[in-house]
Amino acid sequence: MLMKRLFSSSHVFSSSSASSNLLKIGSVLKQARTFADDDVLGYSKLTHDANPLHFDAECAKNAGFTDCLVPGMLVASLFPRIIAAHFPGAIYVSQTLHFKLPVYIGDEIIAEVQAVSIRQIKNKYIAKLSTKCIKRDGPLVIDGEATAMLPSLVMEPPNLEITSS
Amino acid sequence: MLMKRLFSSSHVFSSSSASSNLLKIGSVLKQARTFADDDVLGYSKLTHDANPLHFDAECAKNAGFTDCLVPGMLVASLFPRIIAAHFPGAIYVSQTLHFKLPVYIGDEIIAEVQAVSIRQIKNKYIAKLSTKCIKRDGPLVIDGEATAMLPSLVMEPPNLEITSS
Repeated sequence: MLMKRLFSSSHVFSSSSASSNLLKIGSVLKQARTFADDDVLGYSKLTHDANPLHFDAECAKNAGFTDCLVPGMLVASLFPRIIAAHFPGAIYVSQTLHFKLPVYIGDEIIAEVQAVSIRQIKNKYIAKLSTKCIKRDGPLVIDGEATAMLPSLVMEPPNLEITSS
Repeated sequence: MLMKRLFSSSHVFSSSSASSNLLKIGSVLKQARTFADDDVLGYSKLTHDANPLHFDAECAKNAGFTDCLVPGMLVASLFPRIIAAHFPGAIYVSQTLHFKLPVYIGDEIIAEVQAVSIRQIKNKYIAKLSTKCIKRDGPLVIDGEATAMLPSLVMEPPNLEITSS
């Protein structure tokens, strides 16, 4: 529960259990986050992105949404965060993002990064990862794929458990 | 010059000139930004991405870089920012990102968004955009494509000029 108090938005950091802490094809790394108003404001100040969809409920409703949206790139930042948390020093090579459904303030989002292929090159590993964000109650909000160069297949921090599907 | 003083990092907002302020195929929208240490720290606090490549020069050098990197997603945030600045209310549909070269603190980055195709659907416009970030001295650092649903082809703010290649 300490983790939740550390961050303004609710923030659970977990991945499912498996015998070893080595990344394997099928391994799934997860993290949940609920974005708050402060996060959206912080994103706008940092990136100077002032799209009214994120701040003007009227504008968002005129565009067909029920309220202001959390910026897609802010939600998508969960992917490099998960990769780096498990593989400090990982080099982010590419990312595709399909923003399928809006994310609103207060929605609990679960980001899932799953190893699809792993290729060793010298002392590094090129991992192709499926990257999805889903709402706690199920619908897929962001879909995509990432490629990262990992310094090792050993996952940090060791107390994390990973799933193998 | 007021714009530069507004933001911690140098920040020029321009696009090239053309007769009308309507987006056309070939129109290029540009924006420059130089990222500072505060931006990288702000990104990490906002996203909880603590990849040592962004903070530990030793780790970055061991990975083959000359210094700490600016996070790729922070640099890529220039794309939705440019789209929303010219088309407030634009809906970000998709983005591909290929991180080709590292970006360091102090590098002036020029983001270019160019209309590749425009399709009208009812009273909205689906624009496919080539999205590139280049360093002031030339090399391409991020390449990709975005799709956005625009409320109109008229570009805001009117005092911006656009190029047509």
